[in-house]
Amino acid sequence: MKVLWLENNQIALRDIPQPNKPNEALIKIRRAGICNTDLELVKGYYPYTGVLGHEFVGEVVNAPEASWIGQRVVGEINAVCGKCEDCLNGRPTHCESRTVLGITNRDGVFAEYASLPLENLYRVPDTVSDEMAVFTEPLAAALEIQQQVQIKPLDRVLLVGAGRLGQLIAQTLALTGCDLHVLVRHSYQQDLLNARGIRSITEGEIQPRKWDVVVEATGSPAGFKIARTAVRPRGTLVMKSTYAGEMSVNFSSIVVDEITVVGSRCGPFEPALRLLERREVDPTVLISAQYKLGDILKAFDHASQAGVLKVQIEP
Amino acid sequence: MKVLWLENNQIALRDIPQPNKPNEALIKIRRAGICNTDLELVKGYYPYTGVLGHEFVGEVVNAPEASWIGQRVVGEINAVCGKCEDCLNGRPTHCESRTVLGITNRDGVFAEYASLPLENLYRVPDTVSDEMAVFTEPLAAALEIQQQVQIKPLDRVLLVGAGRLGQLIAQTLALTGCDLHVLVRHSYQQDLLNARGIRSITEGEIQPRKWDVVVEATGSPAGFKIARTAVRPRGTLVMKSTYAGEMSVNFSSIVVDEITVVGSRCGPFEPALRLLERREVDPTVLISAQYKLGDILKAFDHASQAGVLKVQIEP
Repeated sequence: MKVLWLENNQIALRDIPQPNKPNEALIKIRRAGICNTDLELVKGYYPYTGVLGHEFVGEVVNAPEASWIGQRVVGEINAVCGKCEDCLNGRPTHCESRTVLGITNRDGVFAEYASLPLENLYRVPDTVSDEMAVFTEPLAAALEIQQQVQIKPLDRVLLVGAGRLGQLIAQTLALTGCDLHVLVRHSYQQDLLNARGIRSITEGEIQPRKWDVVVEATGSPAGFKIARTAVRPRGTLVMKSTYAGEMSVNFSSIVVDEITVVGSRCGPFEPALRLLERREVDPTVLISAQYKLGDILKAFDHASQAGVLKVQIEP
Repeated sequence: MKVLWLENNQIALRDIPQPNKPNEALIKIRRAGICNTDLELVKGYYPYTGVLGHEFVGEVVNAPEASWIGQRVVGEINAVCGKCEDCLNGRPTHCESRTVLGITNRDGVFAEYASLPLENLYRVPDTVSDEMAVFTEPLAAALEIQQQVQIKPLDRVLLVGAGRLGQLIAQTLALTGCDLHVLVRHSYQQDLLNARGIRSITEGEIQPRKWDVVVEATGSPAGFKIARTAVRPRGTLVMKSTYAGEMSVNFSSIVVDEITVVGSRCGPFEPALRLLERREVDPTVLISAQYKLGDILKAFDHASQAGVLKVQIEP
């Protein structure tokens, strides 16, 4: 089958055998999405060799339980042991022997077929289109913020960054009723937010030390600095992006101001699917382009251009 | 009156006029304690000119309300406006126009007399000796951890650092019933802990990624590194010390492991006094020496030596 293969920071189309794990579901990919993590993996943010891609919707074509066959599904990307301390304490996404779809020791979804354990699969409601369903994984990652931090309706919340993930975070944070402002860099980001009645803000308008919760979604030291300056004493700074290398930070000021810094990664799929089904969020406005799998190298070029949000891939 | 004056990283005994603020209490200092912050201020960790010292017990000798006169008191070190957003939202220790006793724009307690607003004062129960009462402020700082982070009886808690503040943190954390281990550097630290039935641990014995809560109380990058390695995924790292300059940290790993980092500073006085009154903690075991105010330069020399815990000052 045709796949997008990553090796030594190079991506290329390849032909490899179809996955063959009898204990897992074989999924025919219907649609996949290019995520920032994919672009970072190509840049070498983390060593990975294999099929890239982890955002997908597909159809189960083979499975150890027949009832799954024919189901349209999305999939939790962390495949876990179920037996370790993290798994047994409600933290399966932190399983120390996990493999991660298209990221760590598990071939991903920029392919005609992919394989995942049945425990990872979630049926997609009929009213949720393929275009929407592909967003389940990043939407779950956005919801992880509320899984970790209580966002109160009276909170002043600043979101730094309005790119691919930032837009989804903005949509989910807005549902809390909080006083949300989003720092945008580009007018198209602002237009998307304004269309949903979400307020944008410029850097100069951000009052320092006034925000109860600040979400950093740029992954850049400059974004972190803005977020750190904005958060109030005893406020919470949610780090929703990874950072290249180490970052130099004044920890004394974090102690003196009693800031809480919360790292946030993968999130829960069920509530993401519920919000999609109820049309409480609309991620499809983020789709910039779609490509055939055979043209995925062009799709990666496109996705890495400034101003491009989500690029989707069809088989 | 005689005071210890700090200016340009130099401490010296000086004679200055007695404080004269009619809206505040005039307190005759009965006993004061040298804290790590005092030693750091002398090193220039933060620019301050004035009378040093913030840990004290004293007697009110003059006050706008007569009922306070003659009372033996300890005092919250942050003198605040009571009107700003932080003050009105239950965060008075973060008041942006605060002065801080012996630290920021307010003469401290290595003196015959000091001055504080009445709102800052707490009566000391008769059964709490001067030697004990001087520890109210650092004990309150230790309790700030439980004010910010829920320590559960089943939690595995690692405390990195068993110096002046670390010993008090160990005593208060032990009261939660949690599975507490303390990383010690010196045998005298271990002896103090063992005498209270608190377990010490060596660096080699610390299981990585297994501790629900880790408290960093060394203020050193090496201590932070040990703490970061020890905390489990989704665990909490409490930063209880300030750090010189900036510190370089891998924030991606904090995101991937979804760690919560909590900066922690000054704490509540009432519960500290309650614990002292009930003899639930015994800080007096930390007293290494006591000096007369006239010999305070020698006291500072003593306090800065390795292996010395609390040095107290009498008038």
